[in-house]
Amino acid sequence: MSTSDLWQDLERIRERAPLVHNITNFVVMNTTANALLAIGASPVMAHAIEEVEEMVNMAQALVINIGTLSADWIDSMMTAARAARKKAIPIVLDPVGCGATRFRTAAVEKLLQESPPTIIRGNASEIMAVNQTWNNTKGVDSTARSEQALSSAQALSRSCQCVVTVSGAVDLIVQDNSIARVWNGHPMMPRVTGLGCTATAITGAFAAINASPFQAAAHAMALMGIAGEIAGERSPGPGSFQINFLDVLHAIQESDIRQRLKMEMP
Amino acid sequence: MSTSDLWQDLERIRERAPLVHNITNFVVMNTTANALLAIGASPVMAHAIEEVEEMVNMAQALVINIGTLSADWIDSMMTAARAARKKAIPIVLDPVGCGATRFRTAAVEKLLQESPPTIIRGNASEIMAVNQTWNNTKGVDSTARSEQALSSAQALSRSCQCVVTVSGAVDLIVQDNSIARVWNGHPMMPRVTGLGCTATAITGAFAAINASPFQAAAHAMALMGIAGEIAGERSPGPGSFQINFLDVLHAIQESDIRQRLKMEMP
Amino acid sequence: MSTSDLWQDLERIRERAPLVHNITNFVVMNTTANALLAIGASPVMAHAIEEVEEMVNMAQALVINIGTLSADWIDSMMTAARAARKKAIPIVLDPVGCGATRFRTAAVEKLLQESPPTIIRGNASEIMAVNQTWNNTKGVDSTARSEQALSSAQALSRSCQCVVTVSGAVDLIVQDNSIARVWNGHPMMPRVTGLGCTATAITGAFAAINASPFQAAAHAMALMGIAGEIAGERSPGPGSFQINFLDVLHAIQESDIRQRLKMEMP
Repeated sequence: MSTSDLWQDLERIRERAPLVHNITNFVVMNTTANALLAIGASPVMAHAIEEVEEMVNMAQALVINIGTLSADWIDSMMTAARAARKKAIPIVLDPVGCGATRFRTAAVEKLLQESPPTIIRGNASEIMAVNQTWNNTKGVDSTARSEQALSSAQALSRSCQCVVTVSGAVDLIVQDNSIARVWNGHPMMPRVTGLGCTATAITGAFAAINASPFQAAAHAMALMGIAGEIAGERSPGPGSFQINFLDVLHAIQESDIRQRLKMEMP
Repeated sequence: MSTSDLWQDLERIRERAPLVHNITNFVVMNTTANALLAIGASPVMAHAIEEVEEMVNMAQALVINIGTLSADWIDSMMTAARAARKKAIPIVLDPVGCGATRFRTAAVEKLLQESPPTIIRGNASEIMAVNQTWNNTKGVDSTARSEQALSSAQALSRSCQCVVTVSGAVDLIVQDNSIARVWNGHPMMPRVTGLGCTATAITGAFAAINASPFQAAAHAMALMGIAGEIAGERSPGPGSFQINFLDVLHAIQESDIRQRLKMEMP
Repeated sequence: MSTSDLWQDLERIRERAPLVHNITNFVVMNTTANALLAIGASPVMAHAIEEVEEMVNMAQALVINIGTLSADWIDSMMTAARAARKKAIPIVLDPVGCGATRFRTAAVEKLLQESPPTIIRGNASEIMAVNQTWNNTKGVDSTARSEQALSSAQALSRSCQCVVTVSGAVDLIVQDNSIARVWNGHPMMPRVTGLGCTATAITGAFAAINASPFQAAAHAMALMGIAGEIAGERSPGPGSFQINFLDVLHAIQESDIRQRLKMEMP
């Protein structure tokens, strides 16, 4: 991938303002809506089972995030995912806390079974947990680094026929045998809540305007990493980081990407 | 309206700290609570059907926002609205996404039928959708400018006997044949989530201390626009905008209003 | 308490990153998660009855906050509290709005009866309301100063065998006959939503690493007050206050505590 590919995608988002329908958790709703607006996309948050199908039918991507799950929300997620499959718009799944409780693991399993996502994005332990559930393997490690989840991501990508993003100090984007790596980022990022969920939401926006889910997922992680670097350099702490991060997403230039992009594509 | 009318209302809010009861959406709860605190009002967020009536009985205004609606929340909104009507405190309705799904449109219809609000605030397409539902007209345009919604706002105001605020680059405040216009504002405002909902919440605070809903609605939009202008001038992006906006709401002076107010009253 | 006790606790939190399980309200979820991250703790927000027990079993403290209560959330709170009692991890209860509605008061009563918390933190009127309910006394005053709630806090501490924190311009921390007072703080703090809830969440983090709930509660209030002072001095308004507050929590030094701590321990 060259700088221009990512820049082109970002310009497309700013021009087309794709509608990204989020069924996400309470902690990050505001944060992810603002991040989507900052890059030029149009967020909508709606979770009632009575309306998710209609909302999906207006959207260009569906983002499902199980961060503060409850039983009725799972039903809505299933309904929305079915509608998205039918309409053939991308579905991005964030399996927050998969492996931590049986309830979350079972919810992810159900979603994978009935309406497999286009892209799954999680941290290493979440991706390992999703793969363990799905492919009956063992070995969840809650403090795993992203490279430790590589084989899980590959197995999951193959069996679900989806792109898998493992985010961490290095981000891995995996599709079957293809692997992309992003080295951008900043150490303050894990000290701010919802940046993983923001990566997922932004992945939705890129998937809405790029027909290759692999490229979309890689571009999203590169943008997150670069914006995180710039924001981190300007921020004495995690409070100001959040503010600067949104300002940077809004104002990022092609030159920022050209100077900073540290990405390896297959 | 003169500068002094708006300033007087703002001073009244700071003195009396009216309790504004919000049944609002998950995305903006924090944002609108902070905006209400910043202008000197007292926000309370409560949605359980078991307690909304008691909460309304302590409040000086009720704000209903259907942004992340679900069936049980509609019941609570109905109950709260009935209590507010009975107690004769102002009800401000934000029909977020009305027209986008039948679920939202039906919820708005039900609210208008059973407990008509004192003030409805939405963007042009939402107001046109509310009017279409209510008066069986046609022609929702999701990208409409506020002036295009003028006749809808007037029809709605007459049939519901309420004030209707159409927010946009120019804000219209309509009551029967009376129209006020506010030209204040900043182009960054649509890039921040929840500023429309914040306008609605602040309208609730003004309605709590000004017996004229028309004046209250106009004052609220003028304050939003002026604070937005000042914040926008200081902010490189939508992250810092949010912070500066709260700081400005907190510190705004009579001279800021005098210098900036661009409003036309009937 | 000396400076070094508070500093030692803070260093312990940064080293051990205790998992604090929050069942809290929609308004403050993001704020309290970020505050916990800023001091070095690990927040998790989960409320589904299907998973709260498992989540508690991974956590080192449970924080229950009734700010935007509904009936199904009470069931989850009860289940989580029982699991926390069984596992003998500290429970911190924030009785937001207790006394304002019968629904909230009844929920608090139920929680106290079935799974008494280790620490209760509220403002003066909330603590007086909790005590009134529990000990059948009279006299709730919604504008009470913290000293007015002293006898209520003492009665409550004795009958529930818990620590009671009354926050206000002066914070009281009460256990049976012991009283600690914290004079740190800043007048801007009541103009920001969720700082009381943040105090409760941070109390959870301190209780997770200090075996004395009395010390934990006092340290949490002292840290809140000192961070609030520093943030307040740097902030023109409540918007920037929130950002600076997180930055200060993240970067606070032993010398800040040494220079500013205004605390009286028994």
